[in-house]
Amino acid sequence: MDGLLTSEPDVYSASPLAEGDALQGLAQLLAADLAATNATIVARMASEVELIPQLAAHLIAAGGKRLRPLLTLASARLCGYRGERHVRLAACVEFIHTATLLHDDVVDESDLRRGLASANAVFGNKASVLVGDFLFARAFELMVADGSLEVLRILCNASATIAEGEVLQLSTQNDLSTDIPRYFQVIQGKTAALFAAACEVGAVVADRDRSVAASLSGYGTALGMAFQLVDDALDYAADQNELGKTVGDDFREGKLTYPVLIAYAAGDPAERAFWQRTIERGEQSEDDLGTAFELIARHDAIGQTIERAREFARSAQECLADLPDDPVRALMMQAADYAVTRRH
Amino acid sequence: MDGLLTSEPDVYSASPLAEGDALQGLAQLLAADLAATNATIVARMASEVELIPQLAAHLIAAGGKRLRPLLTLASARLCGYRGERHVRLAACVEFIHTATLLHDDVVDESDLRRGLASANAVFGNKASVLVGDFLFARAFELMVADGSLEVLRILCNASATIAEGEVLQLSTQNDLSTDIPRYFQVIQGKTAALFAAACEVGAVVADRDRSVAASLSGYGTALGMAFQLVDDALDYAADQNELGKTVGDDFREGKLTYPVLIAYAAGDPAERAFWQRTIERGEQSEDDLGTAFELIARHDAIGQTIERAREFARSAQECLADLPDDPVRALMMQAADYAVTRRH
Repeated sequence: MDGLLTSEPDVYSASPLAEGDALQGLAQLLAADLAATNATIVARMASEVELIPQLAAHLIAAGGKRLRPLLTLASARLCGYRGERHVRLAACVEFIHTATLLHDDVVDESDLRRGLASANAVFGNKASVLVGDFLFARAFELMVADGSLEVLRILCNASATIAEGEVLQLSTQNDLSTDIPRYFQVIQGKTAALFAAACEVGAVVADRDRSVAASLSGYGTALGMAFQLVDDALDYAADQNELGKTVGDDFREGKLTYPVLIAYAAGDPAERAFWQRTIERGEQSEDDLGTAFELIARHDAIGQTIERAREFARSAQECLADLPDDPVRALMMQAADYAVTRRH
Repeated sequence: MDGLLTSEPDVYSASPLAEGDALQGLAQLLAADLAATNATIVARMASEVELIPQLAAHLIAAGGKRLRPLLTLASARLCGYRGERHVRLAACVEFIHTATLLHDDVVDESDLRRGLASANAVFGNKASVLVGDFLFARAFELMVADGSLEVLRILCNASATIAEGEVLQLSTQNDLSTDIPRYFQVIQGKTAALFAAACEVGAVVADRDRSVAASLSGYGTALGMAFQLVDDALDYAADQNELGKTVGDDFREGKLTYPVLIAYAAGDPAERAFWQRTIERGEQSEDDLGTAFELIARHDAIGQTIERAREFARSAQECLADLPDDPVRALMMQAADYAVTRRH
């Protein structure tokens, strides 16, 4: 693992703390909006059915980066919006995100054998599904109260795209013949669609014209792609001792991710047989994770993944080129760099 | 079982086929609308992600009674509506219903031990969740395309109520101390809320005033309660040889239903110990279903359940009293009787 990291010195050269500054900077600049969003989230997950706030709090109150609502707040401010609607919509975006996390927690018997742990491990499949449904419905109720059919259209559409992306991931998850365009289609759905919608609704509440909304949507899509690719990379590259992040989760779950597709495509027959056994058939023994790291390193799969992420980050920044040059835009530009250089 | 049925001769006196006529009559009267609804359903569940139409078809194309969309179509016609929007909204209602069925299919490890079989058994938990999410999102996209915030409000609200009802059911499912009001809260959420919303949107598309919408919503709620109570009863009373309906599913799944609550409340200590073992702790052996039938019969729990259903059916009919006396209303009145007298 150290070998892996030192073989890509350019990728991880900046200090992680300095890299974090872009998101922290946005959160500081938008502190009042973010606090109001958090208050809305807590108020709206209330239910007399106790299990609902209990389980929702397990995810929502636990914190998280609030990355997606931050994008809504930032986009609205960048578009010159001065009202309060963006707070409610940022809460919607976080509810949708949390609902998809809960639904992503649902496991099949085969997964249980692999020993996953999650909110699901505490509350069970059924609770994860139903509380997720409740949060989805709450998100849509909030949007209806807001009253913009355009916002509803954007977030309904994103929800359908997320579900399609997740189903596609499920259909391809044990299939190493999945090609790169198809893999991009999966992560565009499961990750980038909500990033894009989160940004786009910011332009819509500010009543800016379609070209501005399209630029922000493009920024969100590219940023989401970069984030997901780096997530893929970190699972095979992050320093296990750093910040409690565990590596190898994707491998143990038999997930088909970008680094694996690269290593598989470049592998010799013996290597391909290794990936087929461990990923396609899910037959793994203790030494396999080490072998996976070796093969990933041998073909520079992390470097290639990060390079793809960097391209998406550049494209995200280009989308902001025509928007006003102000502190929010500067931090959104830096957030794209951070997406690539972050270590966790 | 025969003993059970013959002990309530009044309850099941009418012929099952004659009883079916109310729904069949509605379906015939609204045949063109229903055909258009089916076409919309098939068109809108399309996706290039193959698993989606595959799994959705498993439920939707398999038929089913189309009871909820029929309520939307009937309510709209009863309100004098002559346009086409009700067809799209009827499809939404069926998508929401199908999504909740898919999510209801999701099981925990403990359920797997009890040997449930469903769409889930073929496709798995994860697929059921994600395709359900896709259908939810599609339903909301259809509503956004329709453009009525009032319709969106009604169906978002129903979706949140359904999820809350299902979570409440999950929280109380092994708790025999659940009281009747709480049980009614569960079925009001999981079943009656969508019946009510299905009827109410019919009044909304017809642009009728709030009092008409409220009457139809009240009809739907009461009809849904009656349907659910009779479902509860049939699981302990239906003739197993008739139409392939299996009895005892609820018992084997350890479901807390109205007849069980009645029998438990009236039971002596030994009987209560039986229900605690079989329902609360889920410890069942082969003879237990027979014993459950005996205890249900001993306390006339089926008769009491049907009587409650009959009260709800009467209340449903009263809700229609002020609406125009036409063939649709007559069939909706009969449908409330059918809810109680049906055998399957």
